[in-house]
Amino acid sequence: MNITCNKNDLSNSINIVLKAVPGKSTMPILECLVIECKDSQVKLIANNMELGIETYVKADVMEEGSIAINAKLFSEIIRKLPTDEVNIQTNDSFQMKITCGKAKFDLSGKTPDEFPMLPEVEKTQSVLISQFTLRQIIQQTIFSISDNEANKIMTGELLEINENQLRIVALDGHRISIRKIQLKESYQPVKVIIPGKTLNEISKILSGGMDDEVCMYFTENHALFEFDGTKVVSRLIEGEYYKIDQMLSDDYDIKAKVNKKEFLDCIDRSTLLVRESEKKPIILNMENNVMELRIQSAMGSMKEDIEIEQEGPQIMIGFNPRFLIDALKVIEDEEVELYFFNPKAPCFIKDREKSYIYLILPVNFNV
Amino acid sequence: MNITCNKNDLSNSINIVLKAVPGKSTMPILECLVIECKDSQVKLIANNMELGIETYVKADVMEEGSIAINAKLFSEIIRKLPTDEVNIQTNDSFQMKITCGKAKFDLSGKTPDEFPMLPEVEKTQSVLISQFTLRQIIQQTIFSISDNEANKIMTGELLEINENQLRIVALDGHRISIRKIQLKESYQPVKVIIPGKTLNEISKILSGGMDDEVCMYFTENHALFEFDGTKVVSRLIEGEYYKIDQMLSDDYDIKAKVNKKEFLDCIDRSTLLVRESEKKPIILNMENNVMELRIQSAMGSMKEDIEIEQEGPQIMIGFNPRFLIDALKVIEDEEVELYFFNPKAPCFIKDREKSYIYLILPVNFNV
Repeated sequence: MNITCNKNDLSNSINIVLKAVPGKSTMPILECLVIECKDSQVKLIANNMELGIETYVKADVMEEGSIAINAKLFSEIIRKLPTDEVNIQTNDSFQMKITCGKAKFDLSGKTPDEFPMLPEVEKTQSVLISQFTLRQIIQQTIFSISDNEANKIMTGELLEINENQLRIVALDGHRISIRKIQLKESYQPVKVIIPGKTLNEISKILSGGMDDEVCMYFTENHALFEFDGTKVVSRLIEGEYYKIDQMLSDDYDIKAKVNKKEFLDCIDRSTLLVRESEKKPIILNMENNVMELRIQSAMGSMKEDIEIEQEGPQIMIGFNPRFLIDALKVIEDEEVELYFFNPKAPCFIKDREKSYIYLILPVNFNV
Repeated sequence: MNITCNKNDLSNSINIVLKAVPGKSTMPILECLVIECKDSQVKLIANNMELGIETYVKADVMEEGSIAINAKLFSEIIRKLPTDEVNIQTNDSFQMKITCGKAKFDLSGKTPDEFPMLPEVEKTQSVLISQFTLRQIIQQTIFSISDNEANKIMTGELLEINENQLRIVALDGHRISIRKIQLKESYQPVKVIIPGKTLNEISKILSGGMDDEVCMYFTENHALFEFDGTKVVSRLIEGEYYKIDQMLSDDYDIKAKVNKKEFLDCIDRSTLLVRESEKKPIILNMENNVMELRIQSAMGSMKEDIEIEQEGPQIMIGFNPRFLIDALKVIEDEEVELYFFNPKAPCFIKDREKSYIYLILPVNFNV
């Protein structure tokens, strides 16, 4: 291989595929990225067996070839090179020579033959979504997946398409987060569980433009995301997702409309009195258009009143403050509506169009 | 105690004294700060027994009194309060009530009687220095103190005043960093060893204005720094500092003048090939106005040429790249001059006026 390219172009492409390089792996080859140089195109590939990413970099190709090279080291060296033009040469024994200005690096690579290339994903139906929207709905739900690998399904998000509606769901046994959006076109039904880690990495790579689109393809075992010349392939999680629709209800006994920022800031303050391990609930007492929030711990106590618009009788209910904070942080509305039945039943935070639904289970508390 | 003050004023003062609060202490009272409210003045005090800080906060005092309160918790609560005006009340059993807007916090404090107040420092001679300069000379030398507590003297910096000259010295057995400045006036001689940790914290608190001054006082056991209404008292390190003057020499056999940024960037790049634990030297080979830098490790090798202005014969010499980087980073000159004798003797980086001298010992290497 003998190629010349721009340092920043190369760095940007490396940063994309780096998302699929594991920190430490029992298979050292996975800590490499593959540079594949064929038909005057230069492709970078990384794959951690769950998530694989391919992208291109603009380059002048003097000689074809390919090599696997330690991804982190290669990335850092390229980033710190002195000038814009980088020349990369490799030989038959997978030695790499990087030349940039007067700086010369010699690195030992590996044969790419042992590297697990990305699986082929059959393209039956291409679902289009804006990069901005996809990134947003991931960020607005991903916090409520579980990190407990014992329950694999909870570590992923349900992605469901019906007609022109796309719904994304995350749950961890204590809460459910749902976002619903309209697609521009209608599609054949899709129902897949995508690993949370994959979605996290995708949301970091997406350029996020409103007008930039992502093409999504789904097969039985894989999801493929294509955008800006980049290909992201993820394994799917096997199994049946929870039947969440039967947990959702439009009824309520008490409804409270509250200023989101005021509510969020107050809960945020209350958490100062709670150590992460303590699990002290914040207690909301709503009566006569006033919500009193209080928390009590070994460190001290807090009390604060917030004005609300209330429908229904008085209610006192306790929550893990973290769960309320997570949901409120990603809601963009100035005012939010909370729906309650009783102190033992879940609370719903949702808008009228149900473009978002956050279900949070209450916790027991001693008055 | 019953006081009302501005949230940001209070937060700023807390942040200053926080620098003297230990992360974790076997004496829980040291994790507190003391609020002392007397003669319509509100003083905050923290002390970790090596470093003590006192500062004032503007407040309306309705009732005098004092309390010790967990510094970290108090700081976080104040920072997150909803409005500008904060009221703080304490009672005889050291319960604290913080009220701000509709938010109310109750915290348990402690009697300040057990708190070790700052030692009185006798003010014999007041040495004046600009905050900007003091902060700068600390930052330009502090990296070369040792963190090995077994050799206490190396964990501090020598501060020496002769006439109108102030010199600050840090050394760790492999290198010496020296900064020298002119004071506006002449003083009686001073020679003290100040703990590095203290200097670090002071450099963070100093507002850094050119026209803002610090008054320094020294006794046998303490140094006192006064600025902006804040008082910082540090214990001194006992013992005799190293006789560094006999290690400094104005002679040289080889002199090289090099562009600082080019030199620094090149060494910086070379460290990518070295794991922290490996201690691979960077090798400089100077001949005919060219400095060749190279490094070789298990990860690969690097080679780069830099143009220099050279006096004297060819020399090949190896260094810990970290030591060169540390010194070059804090030198503001565009060009630096390096002085060498032979591959076994220390290298000096210094300017003509000797406002800075960085002595670095070379390391052995195999060609």
